[in-house]
Amino acid sequence: MSAYEPQNPDYEKLVRRALKAQGFMALIGAEVVSVEPGLVELAVDYRDEIGQQDGFVHGGVVGALCDNAAAAAAGTLIAPGTGILTIEYKINFLAPAACGRLVARGEVIRFGRTVTVCRAQAFAEGKGARRHVASAQVSLMTFIPTGA
Amino acid sequence: MSAYEPQNPDYEKLVRRALKAQGFMALIGAEVVSVEPGLVELAVDYRDEIGQQDGFVHGGVVGALCDNAAAAAAGTLIAPGTGILTIEYKINFLAPAACGRLVARGEVIRFGRTVTVCRAQAFAEGKGARRHVASAQVSLMTFIPTGA
Amino acid sequence: MSAYEPQNPDYEKLVRRALKAQGFMALIGAEVVSVEPGLVELAVDYRDEIGQQDGFVHGGVVGALCDNAAAAAAGTLIAPGTGILTIEYKINFLAPAACGRLVARGEVIRFGRTVTVCRAQAFAEGKGARRHVASAQVSLMTFIPTGA
Amino acid sequence: MSAYEPQNPDYEKLVRRALKAQGFMALIGAEVVSVEPGLVELAVDYRDEIGQQDGFVHGGVVGALCDNAAAAAAGTLIAPGTGILTIEYKINFLAPAACGRLVARGEVIRFGRTVTVCRAQAFAEGKGARRHVASAQVSLMTFIPTGA
Repeated sequence: MSAYEPQNPDYEKLVRRALKAQGFMALIGAEVVSVEPGLVELAVDYRDEIGQQDGFVHGGVVGALCDNAAAAAAGTLIAPGTGILTIEYKINFLAPAACGRLVARGEVIRFGRTVTVCRAQAFAEGKGARRHVASAQVSLMTFIPTGA
Repeated sequence: MSAYEPQNPDYEKLVRRALKAQGFMALIGAEVVSVEPGLVELAVDYRDEIGQQDGFVHGGVVGALCDNAAAAAAGTLIAPGTGILTIEYKINFLAPAACGRLVARGEVIRFGRTVTVCRAQAFAEGKGARRHVASAQVSLMTFIPTGA
Repeated sequence: MSAYEPQNPDYEKLVRRALKAQGFMALIGAEVVSVEPGLVELAVDYRDEIGQQDGFVHGGVVGALCDNAAAAAAGTLIAPGTGILTIEYKINFLAPAACGRLVARGEVIRFGRTVTVCRAQAFAEGKGARRHVASAQVSLMTFIPTGA
Repeated sequence: MSAYEPQNPDYEKLVRRALKAQGFMALIGAEVVSVEPGLVELAVDYRDEIGQQDGFVHGGVVGALCDNAAAAAAGTLIAPGTGILTIEYKINFLAPAACGRLVARGEVIRFGRTVTVCRAQAFAEGKGARRHVASAQVSLMTFIPTGA
């Protein structure tokens, strides 16, 4: 399915565990939809607590979910004993995230020994429709945790 | 103090009200530090609920706070009856946001009739020190709300 | 072929004319490969004059070609009597542009009345191979030229 | 003057040599204005060959000069035997570069062992005035050249 061969056979377990350990993911109610090599989908259901003043999902939540989906996608490909840090991301908002459900899809477009580049797309789903609401590009760095 | 002359004398009240109406700002515990023409500071105290797996403030929270500080800074300068939308932002993470308190400072670097560009800097404060942890650049659009 | 319906039947002529009027395009030796609604390809052959110190195409040339391909793609969709300005772009370099030929492919991902968002990809072609060397995301603004 | 202490006493000579070796810098007529630790200014005089269709400096030239000024600023701080690569940059255009002279000022805002972040500002100078025309943020990577 994916063009990438994971270096760590336990990639899915590790990525799910890392996401689960983030207090912020629980706070916004994010869940993991799927984890494949180089490709991760996260989602969050609309609640007023993650909205802005007009009843849409807050751009900051959209950005956080895209960043996280990208980092998790990169995380599926790293070697055992290494970690992933976001260097930077850029996100364009294409339409208001007026939805039942917001899905962020992160995918690796270039995996490197030091720097990895991902794309992340966010979609608002609801009432049988799916709308592309944001497009992000993310640069990440592989690192070796101290004390690991 | 500021190089900008607000078009709306009620700018501070309106910006504070807009921020207060965002469920997400309450969810993360963000507060408004200061509102001046073209310059807004927001802050959030560290709690595990806004952290990632290593005990730092989640990058998504840093991004959301920077985006919000930038949008609010732009919001201080717009004409009555108009609103501000984020077109896109880009954020570099410079250091882990390991802190007592995270402060995001948004400032307008170019105010335009249609497009406004802001910079936002995030600082981690605690134990008597202040560290520059993120730098963002944000493009925003002035719009006339339908039904306004 | 394209999902977009041009508002101006003369879109191809106008886009080619605008590109031809750019001194910088001639200076780097850029040519127009194809112009379709929402999709434009530009290319440049390698010469030392557009290189950096290691014999690759200069990142600035890659960025300029991506920006131009994106702006031209947006330009195919605008109404008669309007123009396109780049608000900002962000580009990731994925691999050195070591090539015979550099191709930049700009495509509209969201066309708006005021703001349009494009993606641009650059590929290095040569010796029978094609390599993805850069990925850009571009925000553009439609404007009405004064005196038009 | 600068907050940074260069690791290589020959930093100025090396940065000037690297810039001089770029065919593209010569093609656009760029010159080095100043080289200090963590801070480099480049400039180019207006000619039609670096323009776009409206008589302003082409955005691609502005982007290239900003990228180069940022990379050179990072280059002043690296250890002997290492090099600098641009990972990505993002640039906002604030005003048309209608000028006699375009100056790009690159400065390091975070120097790291692997990743360095710079800001670059472009100014149009002419007729006794100076205008801020572009603001860029650049991520760079230190590398050890193979065969070095």
